[in-house]
Amino acid sequence: MSAIDSDIPLVAEIGRHLVNSGGKRIRPALCLLAAHAGEKFDPDKSLPLAAALEMIHTASLVHDDVIDAADTRRGHVTANVKWGNQIAILSGDYIFARAFRLIADENYDRYVSKRLAELVGNLSVGEIIQDQNLFDAGIDWDGYYDRIQKKTADFLEICCELGGVIGGLPKTDTDSLAAYGHAVGMAFQITDDLLDVWQTSAALGKPAGNDLKQGIATLPTLRALEVSPRRDELAAIITDRQMTDEMLQTALSIIRSSDAQEFTQAKANDYLTKAKASLPKNLPADLRESFVAVADFIGCRRF
Amino acid sequence: MSAIDSDIPLVAEIGRHLVNSGGKRIRPALCLLAAHAGEKFDPDKSLPLAAALEMIHTASLVHDDVIDAADTRRGHVTANVKWGNQIAILSGDYIFARAFRLIADENYDRYVSKRLAELVGNLSVGEIIQDQNLFDAGIDWDGYYDRIQKKTADFLEICCELGGVIGGLPKTDTDSLAAYGHAVGMAFQITDDLLDVWQTSAALGKPAGNDLKQGIATLPTLRALEVSPRRDELAAIITDRQMTDEMLQTALSIIRSSDAQEFTQAKANDYLTKAKASLPKNLPADLRESFVAVADFIGCRRF
Repeated sequence: MSAIDSDIPLVAEIGRHLVNSGGKRIRPALCLLAAHAGEKFDPDKSLPLAAALEMIHTASLVHDDVIDAADTRRGHVTANVKWGNQIAILSGDYIFARAFRLIADENYDRYVSKRLAELVGNLSVGEIIQDQNLFDAGIDWDGYYDRIQKKTADFLEICCELGGVIGGLPKTDTDSLAAYGHAVGMAFQITDDLLDVWQTSAALGKPAGNDLKQGIATLPTLRALEVSPRRDELAAIITDRQMTDEMLQTALSIIRSSDAQEFTQAKANDYLTKAKASLPKNLPADLRESFVAVADFIGCRRF
Repeated sequence: MSAIDSDIPLVAEIGRHLVNSGGKRIRPALCLLAAHAGEKFDPDKSLPLAAALEMIHTASLVHDDVIDAADTRRGHVTANVKWGNQIAILSGDYIFARAFRLIADENYDRYVSKRLAELVGNLSVGEIIQDQNLFDAGIDWDGYYDRIQKKTADFLEICCELGGVIGGLPKTDTDSLAAYGHAVGMAFQITDDLLDVWQTSAALGKPAGNDLKQGIATLPTLRALEVSPRRDELAAIITDRQMTDEMLQTALSIIRSSDAQEFTQAKANDYLTKAKASLPKNLPADLRESFVAVADFIGCRRF
């Protein structure tokens, strides 16, 4: 919390709002778990990295919410609605900067800063790619997987890998943890995309059908575009930049009545199986159980 | 240039547009001059830092232009107009990230990354403060100086200081160069604010009277609010969020007919005198001349 504190009252208030807005904190959790697996585990040394990872995530969400003109996030009003786009853009920059400052203050291996800078670059590029492909009903599986990799899988991979690095794990183990994080990240994003179609707004803490409304075709939509008898109707809605709420509900019902749920869930499960199989062989039993529990949580989460 | 290159065509195109859009490049120039003053000067080692400083500047301008809804910058169309706000926000994030990546790739002293992260944080906070004080006709000299310090003087200070650090200068000299950079930065921003009132749009490469139009009261305006017989009329225009072009022209003519130009120029000159006096005593003559020339350029620049 003190990491994003400020002597400018408004900046401090924004920091508190964002920290108190919750979230699943899966990134710092994975980082700490991975650090814990190493012989050199030191909580004082691990917490700043875990906090910086969550701050980078928060900063990118703040910018995404400006870009998507989103009203709610994690059940709270977004920074762009509460303080306006200007302040939200600047707050995002400020939080990015504080995260890098936190990292610079620790004597981490240089590899840590390199990977974090690479991460922020990839997050931006992932969003740029997404923005270029809005309102497109072409079935581009590779494009989808590339996008969720840059948006989420690379991030969770880095959390696990860097946690392992500062915990002092050997490279074979940090590579295995990275593979675990990557697969868990793919499953996490696929589940997110699934929930956007099947869950209620109240449970999500943000509007359901949000991706479709913004013209983003995710895995359930791609599947329905491939197999639904009403795929032409679905394609027409997706490519319409003036999509009404009624059209959105029609699109959701077309996707829901196809086999997209089973298909998408199966893809997520494949990644979770792969994740568990990637875990280093020599992990202590209690830590292995925790990593498995994270994967299982992702497989059955409803928010 | 390669530092902001990308395998995503749009990202590469944005990078080229921004790099080719010119600018005075005063930040990398100061950094390289300062590095040159040290015994350990190595061009290969200095260029990445100089480039990262210009990239941080560019990224913050890209975000500022979104925030200000600016159409032109350095005589070119802005990224927000050319590609939309979404892409501009993400491009700014991407360029910030690439700058930090460039720094992480070099074996600079840790102090370099700390100061750069601090810099980005301060730039954001400076803009947040500015945003909070829009359309305010109160005469807040301290607020003005604090803002331009965070926006420009701290930046030029860091360019000089860090150049000296990587050049291997002793702390007394990097402190002196930092003081020079700070004073030059104050003068630079004051001159910028002066040109916004007195120069034509064509010479500036951006609209004249831009600050006033956005509700930002700079030094010439503060002076006119203090001494002009038409100060009440000026205050009424400044606090009007629906300022028309006609009102803007009236405000400019009120400021121009006061003694604000002499007053502002004198302030800038004070800082430039201070800057020259701050230069390390033992600088080689040719370098001293270059630092003095930079200060003199700032004193007489017209764009």
